Parts: sequence; C-alpha cells; structure tokens
Amino acid sequence: MHCVIMAGGAGTRFWPKSRRKRPKQLLELFNGKSLIAQTAHRLAKYPGSDGLYVAASDHLVKSIQNSVDGITRTDCFIEPGARNTAPAIALAAFVLRKRCGDDAVMGVFPADHLIKNDKEFQRALSLAEKKALEGPNLVTLGIQPDFPATGYGYVEFNRVKASDVHPVVRFTEKPDLETAKSFLEGGYHLWNGGMFVWQVSTILDNIAEHLPATYDNLASIENLIDTPKFMDALTEIWPVVDSISIDYGVLENASNIFTVETRFDWNDLGSWRTLYDVLPKDTDGNVVQGDATVLDSKNSIVLSEGHYTAVIGAEDLVVVSMADATIVLPRSQSERVQEVVHWLKSREREELL
Amino acid sequence: MHCVIMAGGAGTRFWPKSRRKRPKQLLELFNGKSLIAQTAHRLAKYPGSDGLYVAASDHLVKSIQNSVDGITRTDCFIEPGARNTAPAIALAAFVLRKRCGDDAVMGVFPADHLIKNDKEFQRALSLAEKKALEGPNLVTLGIQPDFPATGYGYVEFNRVKASDVHPVVRFTEKPDLETAKSFLEGGYHLWNGGMFVWQVSTILDNIAEHLPATYDNLASIENLIDTPKFMDALTEIWPVVDSISIDYGVLENASNIFTVETRFDWNDLGSWRTLYDVLPKDTDGNVVQGDATVLDSKNSIVLSEGHYTAVIGAEDLVVVSMADATIVLPRSQSERVQEVVHWLKSREREELL
Repeated sequence: MHCVIMAGGAGTRFWPKSRRKRPKQLLELFNGKSLIAQTAHRLAKYPGSDGLYVAASDHLVKSIQNSVDGITRTDCFIEPGARNTAPAIALAAFVLRKRCGDDAVMGVFPADHLIKNDKEFQRALSLAEKKALEGPNLVTLGIQPDFPATGYGYVEFNRVKASDVHPVVRFTEKPDLETAKSFLEGGYHLWNGGMFVWQVSTILDNIAEHLPATYDNLASIENLIDTPKFMDALTEIWPVVDSISIDYGVLENASNIFTVETRFDWNDLGSWRTLYDVLPKDTDGNVVQGDATVLDSKNSIVLSEGHYTAVIGAEDLVVVSMADATIVLPRSQSERVQEVVHWLKSREREELL
Repeated sequence: MHCVIMAGGAGTRFWPKSRRKRPKQLLELFNGKSLIAQTAHRLAKYPGSDGLYVAASDHLVKSIQNSVDGITRTDCFIEPGARNTAPAIALAAFVLRKRCGDDAVMGVFPADHLIKNDKEFQRALSLAEKKALEGPNLVTLGIQPDFPATGYGYVEFNRVKASDVHPVVRFTEKPDLETAKSFLEGGYHLWNGGMFVWQVSTILDNIAEHLPATYDNLASIENLIDTPKFMDALTEIWPVVDSISIDYGVLENASNIFTVETRFDWNDLGSWRTLYDVLPKDTDGNVVQGDATVLDSKNSIVLSEGHYTAVIGAEDLVVVSMADATIVLPRSQSERVQEVVHWLKSREREELL
C-alpha cells in the first residue's frame, strides 16, 4: 500500500501554539514526537506498507522533512495552495499512477490524528487493503463513535455478514445533536475519520466522474509528472481545480463504498478540549505543561512556552501562553480559538498567524 | 509643609506588570503618568507646600527621578533596605530637623494611592497642617469608608465639635467582616490611608518614646546627615532599626492623635480588583488595555503589554500578560497575586520578580 499522509492543515485550532508555519501536524504534543512523525511511524510499521508520501504546501516541506525521517522531496506531493482534500488526493493519485501503475493500492491518512493500538490499526488497514484489491471499491476506515458528536461526518453502513467490512449506505456531515444521539443508539453509524484506501484507478475514475474539471486539468499535465516542468504547470492549473473535500466532492456521490469498522482509540485532536481529553492530568484534573504555576484550579489545561504563566482559581479553563501571544477561554468553548485566528487575519496580523 | 512621599513599595500586588524594579508607584496606570508623579503633582499644588521629598530604596531613585520632574538626589531619603514605614519616617524626620528645624511641619504620603478632587485634598491638608502647628499633635488623614473593608486599618474618632478634625480614640487594624460592618454603620470610623501630618519634633519625640532603638541609632549618626559619610553610616545602623509600620510602632501607642475627616475620592489601588474599580469600562464591564482581543466577556480586566492576548467567554476574570509572564485569576481573588510572587521568590526566579 502506498500511504499518503495529508499534511495540509493550516494550524488554526491550536493557536497560539500552532501557527501557519508550525501547524498541528508538526506540534510535539506527545512524547516529544510530532503528530506527523507518529503517523508516519504507525504507517511504516504496517507490513503491507510500500512507500510513504506526504501531501503538503511547499512552505511546510522542509519542516516536515526535519520532523519525519527519510521523507525525500520526491515523496512530497506539493500543493501550490490550499484547495481542500479532493485536489490533493487527485494529485497524489495521478503521481502514483505514473510511478506505480493503475492497480496500485493507495491509502490516505490525516497527519494530525491520534491513534492508539497499532495492532488494531494494522488489522483495519489489512481489511481495507483486501477490500480495495477486490474491485473498484472505495474503502473508508470508520471510527466507533463514543459520544454524539455534532462536529464530525458519519458513515451509515449495512451489516450484511459477520465481518468488520460493511457496505456504506450514506454519509451524513455534522448532524444536529438529536440525530447524532440516534446514530449512536442505532449502532449503524461510524465516524468518518478521513482515512481511505482504494486502487489508484478506482479513485481516479471517480474523480473523473464527479469532479471532471479537476480530473481534466490534472490529466492535461500528467505527462509532465516527475519532470522539472511539473511544478510550474501544476501551479498554473491549480487555481481552477475544485476546492472541495473528497467526502463532499466524491464519496457522497459514489457507489461501491465500504467502511471498515475499526476498534482502535482515535482522537482527531480538533481543539484544546479534545487534546485535554487525551493528556495526562494531575489529581485536580489539570493538564500543566511548561513553565507554569497553577494553584487551586480544576479541570484546566495550562500550556506555557517561552513564557511563564501563573493561574489561580481556574475551573474548566484553557490558558495557553507563548512568547508572543496568550489565549484564555473556557474549555467548553475551545473551538472558538478560530474566531481569534479570523480576527487576526482580518487585521492582517501576519506576525501572529 | 515638607511633603515626604513614601515610595518603598515592593511591586508585588500588580505582578506581572509591577516588578521589583518597576513597583506600583512607577506604573503609568492612568493618563500616561506614574502614580508617584501624580502624587507629587497633587502635593506641589498645595499652596502650603514647601518642598517635596521621596523616601525610597536606592535601586528606585533613578527611575523616580525620571518619573517625577525636579526631584534631586538630595530630595531622596534613601533607605538602605526595606524596613517598613517607621524607620523611613524617622529617617525623613531626622534629615528634616537638621535642614529645617524642630518645628517644621512634615507630611507623609504614600506614593501609589489614587486621589481625586484636588480641592478637597488641599482643604484636608490645610486642616491637618493647622492642627499640627497647634501643638504636639499627630494628625492622620482619615478616609470615608464606603464598604466594610477587612483589609484596611480603621481610625475611631470622637466628634467633639462641628469640625472635620477629630480626636482619635483608637486604631483597629484589619477587622473581621462583622466588625467592619459595625464600623461602617456607626459612623465613627475612618480608614487610615497612611497620610500623616505633624511637626518634626512631635514625631521624633514619639519615636524616641515608642521605638527607642530606632531613635537612638539614627540620633547617633545625626551629625553626619548631608555629609558624604552619611549613607555608609546609615547602611551600618539600618539592620538594627525596628522593622515596623508607623501605625503599629508609634500611632497605636501615642496620645494627642487627631484625624481629619476627608471627603476626597481615594483608592489605595491595592490589587487588580481595586484597579478594575477605577478604570473606565466598556459596555460589558470590561477593562481592556494594550494589544488584546476580548470576545463575549463580562466584568473582566485584560492588560496586554509587549504581548498579544486573546480572551473569550471570560467572566470576572483578571488576565494580565507581559512579554515574559502572564497571570490569570478570578477578579474576586486578585490579592492572591502575592502567592505567585512568593512562589517565584521561593524558587529564586529573580528574572520574573
């Protein structure tokens, strides 16, 4: 399997720790290893792994190479701009077709998710790879939901036999709370974790059908792949490819979709709140990292880097201080970090982004 | 009146904005003028004013001279170390006796309090000066209490005639809440704001009586005052003077004490909470200063200096960020800043103090 790590994240959710030049996938949130390094390590351990690639913007390639051992520039599928996942996956598929042929199996994995239990991850990959090799199947790894999340996409499946590979009935993006609760109770919904396995020809045929402009533009420069002219040609067509996610652009309209019911621990680390959930806590439920003093506080996360931070009497609070910027907000409103990032963008505070 | 501004504050209450080298009296909290400059300006406007002096530690003299126009080194009574107010006042009295004689009137004023209504302040000073000139009287300016404070000293007085100058019955330091409430209801208690007026001979006689070691030690080097040898001699005796406040050390044991019932607005700016009270607020009750974004927050104070700070969803919170340090705590617990300062002292984090 050719494993493509999607590293296009913009670094807004963990601001001020994450920045444009140091997005989430490059943060060393656990064990001193970046999330992308952990993802690469996890994929490299899969016995069926036959190559690691990274899809990312040019300005991150050097940092990614510093963070992940053995990734060459050739292993990086460089996106000339942020156009969401469908064009990035299409680009990867075109390059892999040229290098490895039509029936090569390709896996797509977000760089910045946390996955525990490598054995179960490998078992799921193996099931997905087998299903992808059986025919023109699009296979997603489905995550067992453990709460009625309203921020994720769901995959509804049919349980047709005693297996962990199920035909997908439909996708539902970000349901309301009532719907999410009914999904959780019903037992026929998994979270869509953005991990996909398919043959190169299968995804390219689907892109040709559902995103013809993207397909045609990339096809027009296919002969330049792995030549010195490719990057310029790609930069020229990139603005006109569809800026859309693979879920919306392809999967929701495709047939022959399957999901593997996985059983590993998964966390998308989508906010300070979800990070808090997975980090070790003291007896008062606080996560404290860096040069900080936390007194009489409960269930709070305090990160201090290049800066000293004192917190007294906090409850359910997020306090993150970097050398140049600090954020303070309730843990339950962690997602609102993005409002600050938008505010900074609107004021052209580039030095803080 | 010879006005002595007491500028020995250590700069802990407004940490991390205040530091050892930049204590509260030097902070420009209002109108871009430091508190000590405002105090000096207020005193200079008093028609009876006959000289401004500053009592402070050596390491602050330069900063004070930069902050207050026209203060010479001779105008500074330099304390070789922090020994509370009694030795500082004794030192000032000895110097003033040598320079101006026994019956010179001396006023003592904290550098770092906020006082509004200059006319009323001058009226009070004038009453106090008159009373001090009448005899061996110790006169304090009493502040009208407007809430049952438990953190201040109170002056109990007798209202003997229709005047604003009353004989003092006793001092009570930091009463419990019940007592403070009864003081407020009774109408015979004023806050002791640390402002005193007396003749030099009066305070020196009282120091001789109540703090004889302090008196004797200073008297032993009186002949060196205003000679090049004085500072060395003072440094030698300073460790053995009584480290005590003028209230505890002298006033609580003295007779002939009077208080002027003042009617100006006063705030000792003793904590972020009291500062919050006097600063202008937005329509949500927030005080926001510096490079900060505050969203959906209420009744909070956010100060950001050499640093960008974002606060979302805060209520009754204090967030102060400087280039090297940040503090976050509930407004109602503002006094606990000092716990952080003690913590830093105990860890010898000199760079943050």
